Amino acid sequence: MAHPCAFVIFGAAGDLSRRKLMPALFHLWRGGHLDERTAFVGAARREWDDNAFRDEAAGSLREFVGADVLQDGAWERFAARLFFVGFDMNDQSGYERLKQRLEELDETSGVGQRRVFYLATPPQAFALASRQMDAAGLTQPLKTEDGDWPRIVVEKPFGRDLASSRELDAELLRSFDEERIYRIDHYLGKEMAQNLMVFRFGNTIFESIWNRNWIDHVQISVAESIGVENRGKTYEQMGAARDIVQNHIMQLLATVAMEPPSRFDAQRVRAEKTTVIEAIRPVDPESAETDFVRAQYIADAAGGQPVKGYRQENQVASDSLTETYMAGKFHIETWRWNGVPFYIRTGKRLSKRVTEASIHFKEPPMTLFRDCGGAPSNILTMRIQPDEGISLSIDAKKPGVAMALESALMAFRYSEAFPDRVMPDAYETLIMDVIMGDSMLFAPSEMHAAAWAVLDPLLTAWESPEICPLDFYPAGAAGPQSANAIMQRDGRKWSHF
Amino acid sequence: MAHPCAFVIFGAAGDLSRRKLMPALFHLWRGGHLDERTAFVGAARREWDDNAFRDEAAGSLREFVGADVLQDGAWERFAARLFFVGFDMNDQSGYERLKQRLEELDETSGVGQRRVFYLATPPQAFALASRQMDAAGLTQPLKTEDGDWPRIVVEKPFGRDLASSRELDAELLRSFDEERIYRIDHYLGKEMAQNLMVFRFGNTIFESIWNRNWIDHVQISVAESIGVENRGKTYEQMGAARDIVQNHIMQLLATVAMEPPSRFDAQRVRAEKTTVIEAIRPVDPESAETDFVRAQYIADAAGGQPVKGYRQENQVASDSLTETYMAGKFHIETWRWNGVPFYIRTGKRLSKRVTEASIHFKEPPMTLFRDCGGAPSNILTMRIQPDEGISLSIDAKKPGVAMALESALMAFRYSEAFPDRVMPDAYETLIMDVIMGDSMLFAPSEMHAAAWAVLDPLLTAWESPEICPLDFYPAGAAGPQSANAIMQRDGRKWSHF
Repeated sequence: MAHPCAFVIFGAAGDLSRRKLMPALFHLWRGGHLDERTAFVGAARREWDDNAFRDEAAGSLREFVGADVLQDGAWERFAARLFFVGFDMNDQSGYERLKQRLEELDETSGVGQRRVFYLATPPQAFALASRQMDAAGLTQPLKTEDGDWPRIVVEKPFGRDLASSRELDAELLRSFDEERIYRIDHYLGKEMAQNLMVFRFGNTIFESIWNRNWIDHVQISVAESIGVENRGKTYEQMGAARDIVQNHIMQLLATVAMEPPSRFDAQRVRAEKTTVIEAIRPVDPESAETDFVRAQYIADAAGGQPVKGYRQENQVASDSLTETYMAGKFHIETWRWNGVPFYIRTGKRLSKRVTEASIHFKEPPMTLFRDCGGAPSNILTMRIQPDEGISLSIDAKKPGVAMALESALMAFRYSEAFPDRVMPDAYETLIMDVIMGDSMLFAPSEMHAAAWAVLDPLLTAWESPEICPLDFYPAGAAGPQSANAIMQRDGRKWSHF
Repeated sequence: MAHPCAFVIFGAAGDLSRRKLMPALFHLWRGGHLDERTAFVGAARREWDDNAFRDEAAGSLREFVGADVLQDGAWERFAARLFFVGFDMNDQSGYERLKQRLEELDETSGVGQRRVFYLATPPQAFALASRQMDAAGLTQPLKTEDGDWPRIVVEKPFGRDLASSRELDAELLRSFDEERIYRIDHYLGKEMAQNLMVFRFGNTIFESIWNRNWIDHVQISVAESIGVENRGKTYEQMGAARDIVQNHIMQLLATVAMEPPSRFDAQRVRAEKTTVIEAIRPVDPESAETDFVRAQYIADAAGGQPVKGYRQENQVASDSLTETYMAGKFHIETWRWNGVPFYIRTGKRLSKRVTEASIHFKEPPMTLFRDCGGAPSNILTMRIQPDEGISLSIDAKKPGVAMALESALMAFRYSEAFPDRVMPDAYETLIMDVIMGDSMLFAPSEMHAAAWAVLDPLLTAWESPEICPLDFYPAGAAGPQSANAIMQRDGRKWSHF
C-alpha cells in the first residue's frame, strides 16, 4: 500500500493533465491503490480556488472517462482531496505560495513532506521550474522507509540531441538526484510492453531461441493514423526521429533485445536495457544515406475524405523539411544479435494505428513441404496497441485429403484471456510506480544519452538534404516507397499491418 | 487424380463398412477425388443382388451421414457404381465368382485390373481370405504407372504379441508383397495427427527446442468415455495394451519423437518412425512392476446415471483380468531423447474423451518472477480429438498496476482457423491414400514388430497377477490412483484433461 503524499501537477490546466493525469489519478484512487489522505495539488496560471479546480476536474472526468463516474461516492471523497495554487512558473512568489500550501497539507493530511512534482508543462519550462523549486526550498532531499523524496516527473522530449539532453540533465541534477527523477515514457506503462519481459523471461521456450541462431531479423513499427493535429508548432522542432524513435522505439527495441537481468528490479533491468542501447552501432554517414529514409505526408483523398498534407497543417512551414515518417536499420553489436538487423519504422497519417514488435525466425533448415504452400518462416508478433497480445504464425495442414499447407496463427489476446479485467491506462501504471518509488519503467539519464548517441550522426546527416533527401508519401498510405527499398535490398519485406 | 479401380469390401454387411467405409467412399466420390468409373464391390454372406446392396448402402448413408445426402444427383451416380457378390469366406467358389465379376468390371469400367481388397472382417479371417484369394488368382502382381496392384487393407489387431504378429505377416506376405499391404490405423488419418509432422518439420521454432535440452517429459493420452459397448467378446482377448497402446499410442509417440526425415515420402517417414520405436527400451520385468499399471473399471453411479463395471458387461467373464486402462513410462534411447520420459495412458470409461500429446518443457533457468504467480513451465498440447488443435501455455502479466502473472494460452484451433472447411473423416484420408498408392500413413510390418517387441515383456509379466496386480477405478473417474503414483514418484503429474 502506498504512503500518502502530495501529488503536485504543474500545468494542471493543460491538455495532458485533463486527458490523462486526472483520469489516471481518479482511477487509482477509486481502485483503492492510493492512501485516502493523498493530496492532489494543481498548479497553473489560472485564477482558480480549490472549488473551481474541483469543477474543472469534474469536467475532465466527464469528458474523458464518462459522466457516470461522478455519480458514486468516490468522486465526492476524491474531490475533497483536490487543491489548487494559482501560479506563474516564471514568478518566484508562486513557488513560495505552493510551498506554504504543501506545508499546510503536511500538517492536515499526514503526507509528511512526501511530494511528487509532475511537470506537465512544455519542456522549455523544466530547467526554470526546477531551479525555482530549488530556490523556494522545495527540493530538499528526504529519505523515508519508502524511498527518496521529493520526486520529479518529466515528459519527453528529453532534449533534441545528445548535447541538449546532457544540458537538461545537468539542470535537473542541480536540484534532484538521479534516483528522484522520473522520465516518463508512457509506452513502457502499457500492459503488453511490460508483458514483453514476462513473456521473454517467465517462459522457457521463447528465450531459448531468442538469438542469432534462430532469428533472421526483428521489426519494430509505431504507426499512427492521425496527423500532427494541433501540435504543428512543437512538431516542427521534432520530427519522427526525436518524437518516437529516440524514446518509444529505443525502449521497445531494448526490451526485445536486452540480456536477462539477474534480478527483476529497477537497477538491473535498466542497466541491461542501457547496455543493449549502448551496443547499437551509431549511424555512420554512409548508412544514413543507404539504410535510413525520412519522409513527409502529402495531401491525399484516396480514403474518400480529402486529407491535408503536413505542409498545409496549422503552424507548419510551407517548405518544412521536418520528417513525419522514418524507417531504417539498426545493428546491435553483441554476441546474441550480431548479424541480425533490427528494422524500425514510424510515421503519422499511415494506413493504420498499430505499435508492434515482430520476430522473424529463420526458415527451417530443410523444406520438406516445398510444394505444399504455407509461409516460408515463423513470425512472432507482439502487439503493444491496439488489441494487445502475442501471435505466432505457423504453417499448418489444411483440412482435406491432400497435403496442403497454410499459414495459421497461434494467438494470445489480452481481451480474450482476461475478458473481465479492465486494462489500466499506461499513466495509471506509471504514476503508481512513481508514488511507490519504483523506477523500473522509467529511463535513466544514461539510457537517453545512449539513444541520442545512436541518432546524433543521423540527425546531422539529415541537415544536408542534398545528400539525404526528404521523401514524400500520400496521407493514408503504408509509407514511402523508399522504405520498401531498404527491405528489398536485403531480400526481406515489412510486415503487413 | 486417382485412376479408376475396383474397391472390394470383404464384410460389406458389417459395422465398419456401414459406419465408416461407405460414408467415406461416398464423400470421396462426391468431392470429386475419385474417378467416376471407380467400382465399389461389396462382398458378404448375404443373399443380396446389386440393387439390394444399393438399398443397404443408402440406409447406411441415411443413418451415418444424414438423409439429405441422398437428395442430390451424386447419390444416383454413386449407387450405379455399387456392385455386390454374395459370398462365404470359407467357400472357395465365392472367390471365383468375385474374380469373374471383377473381370467383367475390368472390361466395362476400364479399371484395368486395379483392385483394392479391404478386409473389413474379424482378424481371424485375414489369413484364410488371403490364401483363398491367392488360390483364385486374385493376387497376381500388376505393375502400373500408379504403383503396385492389387492392394490389401487390413485392420488391427495385427496379432496379439510379437510371435503371432510375425505369423500373420508371413501369411499375408505369402500372397502380397509388403508394398501392397496397407495396415490401417485410423488415428494416423486424423487431421491433427498428420499436422503433427507439419508442425514439427514445417516450422523452425518448435523443432529447434524439440529435445532433451529443453523438454522435461512428454505425455500421451488416449482417453475414452465409453465402455466396451458390444465388443465384450473381442475385448476380453485384447485389453488396453493390445487395443490402443501397441498401435495408436506407439504411432503418436513415433510421430512426436521421430528424427526429421530426409524426404517427405512413405519410405523415409516410415523408416524414421520405425527407428524411434526400435529405440524404446523394452519393458523389463522390474519396470513392469514399478513403471506400469493396469486397471479395470468398476460400477459407479457418481455421474448420476449408474454405470456397469467391466465384469458386468455383456460377454465378459465375471472374474476377468483384462485391463481396460493402462499407464506407464517409456524411455527412448536416442541422442535426442535420452533421459526424457514418455508417459502414456489410455482407458475406457474415463471422465472425458480426449486424445492428445503434450510436451512439458523445463522450467526457466532462473525464476525472475518467483513471487508473482503463474505456472512453473510451458506446456505444448497437441489435441488429436476432439477440438483438434495446438495450444501453448505461457505465463503472461495479468492486467493491472501490480506485477502478477497468470498462465494463459496461445492457441490454434482447426475449427477457428478453417471455419468453412469440413474435416474429412480419417477413413477418407486413408482410403484415398490406398487408392493413390501412398503408404506413408500405414505401418509397415517391422514397425508393428518393433512395437510388439517393446510390449511383449510387459504382457508376459502381466500373466502373473500376484506380481503385477490388476487395479480398479470407478467408471467415470480420471483413472486409478496407482497411475498417479507413477508420476508422483518422479515429482510430476498428469495433465488435467
